Amino acid sequence: MAETAPFFQLLKTCPNTSARAGRIRTPHGEIQTPIFMPVGTQATVKALSPEELEAVGAQIILGNTYHLYLRPGTEVIGRFNGLHGFMNWPKPILTDSGGFQVFSLAELSKISEQGYAFQSHLDGGARHLLTAEGAVEVQMALNSDIMMCLDQCIAYPAEYQQASEASDLTTRWARRCKQRWQAEPNCPNALFGIVQGGMYKDLRTRSVQEMGTIGFPGYAVGGLSVGEPKELMMEMAGHTLPQLPADAPRYVMGVGTPSDLVEMIALGADMFDCVMPTRNARNGQLFTSQGIVNITNACHRDDTAPIDPICHCYTCRHYSRAYVRHLFAAKEILAHRLATIHNLHYYLDLIRQVRVAILEDRFEAFARAFRSNADGTIV
Amino acid sequence: MAETAPFFQLLKTCPNTSARAGRIRTPHGEIQTPIFMPVGTQATVKALSPEELEAVGAQIILGNTYHLYLRPGTEVIGRFNGLHGFMNWPKPILTDSGGFQVFSLAELSKISEQGYAFQSHLDGGARHLLTAEGAVEVQMALNSDIMMCLDQCIAYPAEYQQASEASDLTTRWARRCKQRWQAEPNCPNALFGIVQGGMYKDLRTRSVQEMGTIGFPGYAVGGLSVGEPKELMMEMAGHTLPQLPADAPRYVMGVGTPSDLVEMIALGADMFDCVMPTRNARNGQLFTSQGIVNITNACHRDDTAPIDPICHCYTCRHYSRAYVRHLFAAKEILAHRLATIHNLHYYLDLIRQVRVAILEDRFEAFARAFRSNADGTIV
Repeated sequence: MAETAPFFQLLKTCPNTSARAGRIRTPHGEIQTPIFMPVGTQATVKALSPEELEAVGAQIILGNTYHLYLRPGTEVIGRFNGLHGFMNWPKPILTDSGGFQVFSLAELSKISEQGYAFQSHLDGGARHLLTAEGAVEVQMALNSDIMMCLDQCIAYPAEYQQASEASDLTTRWARRCKQRWQAEPNCPNALFGIVQGGMYKDLRTRSVQEMGTIGFPGYAVGGLSVGEPKELMMEMAGHTLPQLPADAPRYVMGVGTPSDLVEMIALGADMFDCVMPTRNARNGQLFTSQGIVNITNACHRDDTAPIDPICHCYTCRHYSRAYVRHLFAAKEILAHRLATIHNLHYYLDLIRQVRVAILEDRFEAFARAFRSNADGTIV
Repeated sequence: MAETAPFFQLLKTCPNTSARAGRIRTPHGEIQTPIFMPVGTQATVKALSPEELEAVGAQIILGNTYHLYLRPGTEVIGRFNGLHGFMNWPKPILTDSGGFQVFSLAELSKISEQGYAFQSHLDGGARHLLTAEGAVEVQMALNSDIMMCLDQCIAYPAEYQQASEASDLTTRWARRCKQRWQAEPNCPNALFGIVQGGMYKDLRTRSVQEMGTIGFPGYAVGGLSVGEPKELMMEMAGHTLPQLPADAPRYVMGVGTPSDLVEMIALGADMFDCVMPTRNARNGQLFTSQGIVNITNACHRDDTAPIDPICHCYTCRHYSRAYVRHLFAAKEILAHRLATIHNLHYYLDLIRQVRVAILEDRFEAFARAFRSNADGTIV
């Protein structure tokens, strides 16, 4: 890349924890880290418009390569020069490699040195092969600002041998992904490596070293939040994150609850994605400064107060608990929308506050206050 | 009412047709007639926010008393001083009386001189009685700007005797509704009478006379678009509308297609409501300057053009046919939203153009051009 500005700039590290604040530069704008990425699986963050995403503070969203590859397909998205034009989202996009979804959604998926052979979960008939190189090519067609290497994610629990082999395959695929990426002249899209290794520290260390040797603009920790106990997830993250290069962004994939984010940031994580705020919103589970509110409960029936009295989101500024509950009871589309706006605002506002705390040298106090406040209460 | 400004002001009548342009004053603002009212059955126009409604040009929306009475109930809505505060819609609202929905949705509904006895379609168990006075009281609790008298709508076809009795009952209910309305000191809500009479001209004439004798700020033509042939609907409207007082707004209930609106306006109608633009939107049927586009059709798969090249709605300014089709195929919520925005914009823009044409003495030419252009083409 010809630009002189670095892809990632580390602005601050917390003196007593590993929490960091930084900045990522992409062709579609800057990202202030730490950052949470709303999940827009099918070229839309469910229920929201791009304007609403911007209003809740989204700086980057995630698209799922597997879904988009199958529908509408890269040929259609290519007519719009990629996902940004297709879905009218002007800011950065990160896409996953598609591997995890093949593993979890596709029928008859079969893994080999080449990649994943699978049948679409949509039509059931069509056969596809997702190779390491192909995963990069699809993401180039989507023109995502940050592409992910194809990796093999394993279920929990997994035997050492299986975890080791999956990690090794992930490393070999990462080399091929990087080669394919580098073969593209002036490729504007960044490519991240993914650390695997299951719940085995030595495998995690080996994976970190191998990814670092290959060399990427950023690194992800994959294979967490796959069913393991929370303590184990935190232990693996705490073991893995500090070993990653300090001058590159660190992305913990598929995580997590609001507390998970704060704790992971303390361990040195910079980027997150999770369906939790959006999916839970559609089930009526709302994150608030006082804990989780289940808005469908009868106690909210005639409550004229907003979901969260200290929240500044569009939903809380204009609507009551009673109205949002009514929309859920009446199965109205606006229910999902107002709830999603609120939950994403909660996540993005939380991470914005965390960032300011890091920059102002008061992250530890912030995290302490957050821990004593945010958990548990279910209304 | 103490105000000196009249409720309705007739600004212009087309010299060769009966088309009119006027203005209605309500506590929540003015309405420019002719006007189309988007249907917001359950305290939300399905898929849209109030801001989006304003952006498509909605000046007044319709709420359904039957639905709101059952859920969330007037007690809840009363806590917000009515529907405007509950749903965050600052502009005028018209509510129906609930009678038509009792007739079409409720279980075991039974009609008597008192009103409708029925069981809720929601819980099936609770028994309710909707009297003429009760219909006004519920609408006062909703604080709608325009309330409707309880009426008896009959199915098509209906015997003369049945139509006559229903029309007479509607008249007796209208008297009671007006009495209940006048018993309220300084009631800010207007009350419209509803003309019935089935497909019998003499009954329609009698109903018009009786309603006019009772006297209301505005009059609706009910009992049209209930299954009769279009020619018959137009014949009945053409017979009924000119007999209504010229100095009051005329509302044709539950109508219709874009052409129906233009033709009814030519006959002297001022106000319309219909679920067609919103319901068809959710089925992927989009109204355009070239005819109806079925956006789910495969031919739109990779079409980068907007739904309607000459449309200025949010959807057409930002999204392609390919994207909207993809959202429908992926069953994404945003599909309903973008389609609803487009269809409502089409309706409201059409009626805005009609109004300007009336004011500029070129309604006939406009209607001619519209007729030759808008019908038929299905893509």
